[in-house]
Amino acid sequence: MPTKTDNDKGPFDGLLVIDLTHVLNGPFGTQLLSDLGARVIKVEIPEHGDDTRSYGPFIDNKSLYYSFVNRGKESIALNLKDECDREVFTALVKKADVLAENFRPGTMEKLGFSYQDIVKINPNIIYASSSGFGQTGELKNSPAYDTIIQAMSGIMMETGFPDSPPTRVGTSISDLCAGVFMFCGITSALYGRDRNGRGSHVDIAMFDSTIAFLEHGLMAYVATGKAPERIGNRHPSMSPFDIYMTGDKYISICCGNDSLFAKLCNGLRRNDLANDPRFSSNALRVANQAELKVELELTLKTKASDEWVGIIRNFGVPVAPLLTVKEAMELPQIADRNMLIESGGIKMPGNPIKLSGYPDPKKRPAAPNLNEHGEKIRKEFL
Amino acid sequence: MPTKTDNDKGPFDGLLVIDLTHVLNGPFGTQLLSDLGARVIKVEIPEHGDDTRSYGPFIDNKSLYYSFVNRGKESIALNLKDECDREVFTALVKKADVLAENFRPGTMEKLGFSYQDIVKINPNIIYASSSGFGQTGELKNSPAYDTIIQAMSGIMMETGFPDSPPTRVGTSISDLCAGVFMFCGITSALYGRDRNGRGSHVDIAMFDSTIAFLEHGLMAYVATGKAPERIGNRHPSMSPFDIYMTGDKYISICCGNDSLFAKLCNGLRRNDLANDPRFSSNALRVANQAELKVELELTLKTKASDEWVGIIRNFGVPVAPLLTVKEAMELPQIADRNMLIESGGIKMPGNPIKLSGYPDPKKRPAAPNLNEHGEKIRKEFL
Repeated sequence: MPTKTDNDKGPFDGLLVIDLTHVLNGPFGTQLLSDLGARVIKVEIPEHGDDTRSYGPFIDNKSLYYSFVNRGKESIALNLKDECDREVFTALVKKADVLAENFRPGTMEKLGFSYQDIVKINPNIIYASSSGFGQTGELKNSPAYDTIIQAMSGIMMETGFPDSPPTRVGTSISDLCAGVFMFCGITSALYGRDRNGRGSHVDIAMFDSTIAFLEHGLMAYVATGKAPERIGNRHPSMSPFDIYMTGDKYISICCGNDSLFAKLCNGLRRNDLANDPRFSSNALRVANQAELKVELELTLKTKASDEWVGIIRNFGVPVAPLLTVKEAMELPQIADRNMLIESGGIKMPGNPIKLSGYPDPKKRPAAPNLNEHGEKIRKEFL
Repeated sequence: MPTKTDNDKGPFDGLLVIDLTHVLNGPFGTQLLSDLGARVIKVEIPEHGDDTRSYGPFIDNKSLYYSFVNRGKESIALNLKDECDREVFTALVKKADVLAENFRPGTMEKLGFSYQDIVKINPNIIYASSSGFGQTGELKNSPAYDTIIQAMSGIMMETGFPDSPPTRVGTSISDLCAGVFMFCGITSALYGRDRNGRGSHVDIAMFDSTIAFLEHGLMAYVATGKAPERIGNRHPSMSPFDIYMTGDKYISICCGNDSLFAKLCNGLRRNDLANDPRFSSNALRVANQAELKVELELTLKTKASDEWVGIIRNFGVPVAPLLTVKEAMELPQIADRNMLIESGGIKMPGNPIKLSGYPDPKKRPAAPNLNEHGEKIRKEFL
């Protein structure tokens, strides 16, 4: 067995991924493979490339959108309807461990590159498909923007306040979850293949991925047969467990039990609340959470958030400031965890999968220019 | 190489996971392993067990919270401070492929079961830790409820409307993402171990995991150095791309370009809008999105959502109804994709990682009673 060498790129060093994915969900999944050492060859449409190459914001004419999910990959431009290019593609597939794609179901079939077609070229390949609603079912051909999947999965109905409209999660959660689950499917199938010699078709849906994340909302539906109400930022069954306004900014306070509530009252010098019959148990505090919030904010508004966070923390109560993305990214913890790295001169999120014995560099190779590696790859594989 | 057999449980058939995780993030990660065939032995505190055993809602005295993330696992009650039980635990660890835990950093060390301790018992083990802020950095010991991580990561500041408070994502996204990334870390380390014989310490943070999901918000910060504003449900750079009120309910409409906008105007019989100079390009529509929304809703409110979804879809424009969790779970697509399964008499979300050649059963083994498999496991491993 080889021992660790200096050029060890990650656990997937030596893995070859042919990457037909575009826009967000597929590229996020294959980038995780690239971050962890796989060689990812991105196949793009000649001249045009991945749509996101033209999405803003830009730095030095480079799309952040494209760069954030394609760093470290190689790019070759191939027209999959052109005979010569199909030959190159076939040569790539022959040597690949993984083929990843996130076209609308049916597209790969029309190109003659369905799973059944591809296993004729490479019988044990892992063929990963990610799409809006999956490769099966009556909705499989429905359009699938992140917002549409969020709308149809119930998650928007669960996000926000009782008196505000349903609220989109402020990130493309359905796209991103599907990307991570595609990575999970690929690595699972690889592990299986190492044991039984068989490849697999990985079939990930943004819709399924979001359903798997519903948590409380789905529990409430299973328990009652009804859709739960939106409850804003508070916890459904603990109180005080919400965000609260101070003299300047919001803070989050999480009291999961009576003892923490007593400590909070102590910290706020509001022992009247600890003794108030409306708030004498967690169940009562949940029932009367709106009144409790008014009382707490009355006191919290008398000092700035920084001061309160210090005081409440000293009393042993879980508390945190509510931060903007800018404030979050400027926390020393971000540098401590290498969660803001550089790639091609652009700052971007680091890899959250930290593995001892493997590198987690502060600087990663840039996202490729369109067809940047085309010539080299053609020479290598043809 | 063995070929497929009927008792093939999944790609991780034969993998042994010793699972010290509790509450949500760790258990979600190890359940994915169990769903895909691994044997997961959950180690719980005697008498008390995982805290979530007492969290509602309940069906037949079974906690849905516990059941949703522990199906198919075995349970043994061990007091890790008791010498006899430590011996059992050590025997388990000796045979394990994976040890997973999500205690606060330092807890395993105090028990004498840090990564350094465990590799003395089993040198090539994959040791997976998931925590709020990770095993390193100045915040590593900070308390880490999902709401606190959401508050500190910036995602709450990005979710919701300009005139509403920052909004918690209506699911425990930081917990759930960390669980999935723990799964990713474990499977990556397993793949590496098969190649180089080395185990690894997987170190996942809810905070890192949420940062990796920030997307647009982080792009905007990197591009401008400023935190972006909350923009509600609309797309930052396309319009009309938002939710809109009809005669009864909200629908989501996604027009990414001029041609789709023209089709939408056609479908709504509002060709005046297609010709309106305020809306003649995507950039203008984004700048004037509020006025455009007023105009569109004026027409959309004249018919019910079902009718409009049919009409707009026929014109080739991406559109979807905004569904509650109940409505979402009743879509035929849920059954088509096996995304509502049964385990121990409880309906719960299916596994979103669909792999051809491996089972995806409609019925899965129940979550275990506390210490249900204790005696059997002691006999087997001691």
